[in-house]
Amino acid sequence: MKAGKKEGEEFKVTPWEVSGKIDYDKLVKDFGVSKIDQKLIDRIKKNAGEVHFMLRRKVFFAHRDLNWLLDEYEKGNKFFLYTGRGPSGKVQIGHLQTWYFTKWLQDKFDAELWFQFTDDEKFLFKDKSYEEIQKWTADNMLDVAAVGFDPKKTHFIVDTKNANLLYPEAIKFAKKITFSTVKAAFGFDDSYNIGSIFYTSMQAVPAILPSVLKGKNIPCLIPLAIDQDPHFRVARDVYPKLGFYKPSIIHGMFLPPLTGAEGKMSSSEESSAIFTTDTPKDVEKKIKQHAFSGGQPTLEEQRKLGGNPDIDVSFQYLKMFFEPDDSKLEKIEADYRSGKLLTGELKEILIEKINLFLKEHQKRRELAKKQLDKFLLK
Amino acid sequence: MKAGKKEGEEFKVTPWEVSGKIDYDKLVKDFGVSKIDQKLIDRIKKNAGEVHFMLRRKVFFAHRDLNWLLDEYEKGNKFFLYTGRGPSGKVQIGHLQTWYFTKWLQDKFDAELWFQFTDDEKFLFKDKSYEEIQKWTADNMLDVAAVGFDPKKTHFIVDTKNANLLYPEAIKFAKKITFSTVKAAFGFDDSYNIGSIFYTSMQAVPAILPSVLKGKNIPCLIPLAIDQDPHFRVARDVYPKLGFYKPSIIHGMFLPPLTGAEGKMSSSEESSAIFTTDTPKDVEKKIKQHAFSGGQPTLEEQRKLGGNPDIDVSFQYLKMFFEPDDSKLEKIEADYRSGKLLTGELKEILIEKINLFLKEHQKRRELAKKQLDKFLLK
Repeated sequence: MKAGKKEGEEFKVTPWEVSGKIDYDKLVKDFGVSKIDQKLIDRIKKNAGEVHFMLRRKVFFAHRDLNWLLDEYEKGNKFFLYTGRGPSGKVQIGHLQTWYFTKWLQDKFDAELWFQFTDDEKFLFKDKSYEEIQKWTADNMLDVAAVGFDPKKTHFIVDTKNANLLYPEAIKFAKKITFSTVKAAFGFDDSYNIGSIFYTSMQAVPAILPSVLKGKNIPCLIPLAIDQDPHFRVARDVYPKLGFYKPSIIHGMFLPPLTGAEGKMSSSEESSAIFTTDTPKDVEKKIKQHAFSGGQPTLEEQRKLGGNPDIDVSFQYLKMFFEPDDSKLEKIEADYRSGKLLTGELKEILIEKINLFLKEHQKRRELAKKQLDKFLLK
Repeated sequence: MKAGKKEGEEFKVTPWEVSGKIDYDKLVKDFGVSKIDQKLIDRIKKNAGEVHFMLRRKVFFAHRDLNWLLDEYEKGNKFFLYTGRGPSGKVQIGHLQTWYFTKWLQDKFDAELWFQFTDDEKFLFKDKSYEEIQKWTADNMLDVAAVGFDPKKTHFIVDTKNANLLYPEAIKFAKKITFSTVKAAFGFDDSYNIGSIFYTSMQAVPAILPSVLKGKNIPCLIPLAIDQDPHFRVARDVYPKLGFYKPSIIHGMFLPPLTGAEGKMSSSEESSAIFTTDTPKDVEKKIKQHAFSGGQPTLEEQRKLGGNPDIDVSFQYLKMFFEPDDSKLEKIEADYRSGKLLTGELKEILIEKINLFLKEHQKRRELAKKQLDKFLLK
């Protein structure tokens, strides 16, 4: 989905490339999704008992068919959650953001979660060996388990390991999707390998898998970063043709890279990402060295003119993920704007927050090594 | 693989379409395979102890790397056999031809057989439901079992049921095959569904599956009707890249349709095919009504001028499948040419032969209903 140029600005958002300065309003229009408004937030609150700060702050900002999903929920027709991970490298905090939000949804809506590891996708799209992808799959599972999903209600699907379940359903989607459609949606051409062309069918399946296994139609909610939306746009019309509900989707923004301006945090660039296995020293060093600052060049100017939190990566990380408390965040924002809070001090706040967060995550990640079995699909 | 026009003649041989008057010499050239010569037949005889009449009569007429396979065999490096069936309708005698020849290979070379049921293929390429294809898969298995393969050495693979084994290997082939290649080999365009584009990777896998499962490189021989060759032409260069031998292939001609001239016997046309479940009356009626005759229009002319066995379908069936005895066949041929044997008499010979054959096949087909378990991959 290449957005049109606009005064020299260009950005690109596909499942395999996020680049440029992202215009989320344009994405909403181009993808044909809906913005989440206050009315919908209130409705979620009514059902969940509270509103997650990522919703309040519009980190999760758009959706498909969420009102329908809540209609069903209010009628007593519960939904399950489906999200996933393409395991081709270390997990970073941009991934965690969606998953911790998903955990909140699981807790508040007492929902089953089907979590897909798309090892086939990463093998087919990356210049990495099958063995390396398998290694990352095993590694990344630890992070997903560490989020704290309820093992009794959470099922890990690994595409190559659970192909007996996925492939027979995937071909039902595939039969109704032409290469023309895939070309238009993803920008592929004839030089793409035939596995990558087929792949989107495999990603469509988990949204119906519990319905297939239980022999009844169950609503599905997919929390995802918006770059994954094209997969479900392609499969969207196929779901009802196969006798299933279209899944509802809730779309998140990208946690920006440390370096600021453009794209999304990427695992392939060490300096742009904070990984779940980083030590407190790593985190401190990365943020101090790389986190793009919205502050002024000198202390004097910062005191006098204040900083700009809207472009300050440290502030954005606090807002999007690491400072759930609104009043604390507001104070930080005000102090930064006024010049009371310096860039170095703001960075210290973030470093402490992330390290506290990662300390707990890493503890659970260690415990997960003995508990993965509980999550694996038999 | 569309062959070039030649004085108004045109034919087409792809895994999904066989039409026109087939020029096998041109196919050998277009596909880049080798003809089987007397020297190779003698070499097979040396190892097998005898020569199957389908080899002697050049029904199996071409090959890839058969000398290499025999080199390996003579060194003590045994091969396994791989063939298959796309289950979208009833089995007819054209299919049986390859399978009975395969049984001979199994017996003479003491070879394991991996038999693939490509239910995914038929679902993706035909306008038939998933359920119907499953029904044909179960039905067609009976015919394969009825051929008399050794259950201890024969493994049925069903693509959708054994996807856990096939899909992880298929993506390794898929990663190295572009849509451009598939387009050129099969004549696909952008309107093809993405499952059909991927499918050829699934057909490549059984040629390495025993090697994967046993952890060592085992030579493979694929007996097939030549329309299936393009799959292996596409995958051919990939095998060594994945560390496996290229499979050897032995190519069969098509049993012509009852109606004679063009294409191959097809399950989708009742009047063109004799099915394994046909009654003796069905067989009699079909051959009497439809079998294209090389005889003369009148009894007088037949006695005087004789018939032409080269275009007579009944004679071709005897030659290609139902009369293994060379001296008997030679007598039939001579008598038919001389005018001694009339078309009706020739048809009676064939009817009796086929019905005798089918009686035994049907007996074993009935027994197979309780024995399929022995063949299924666990």
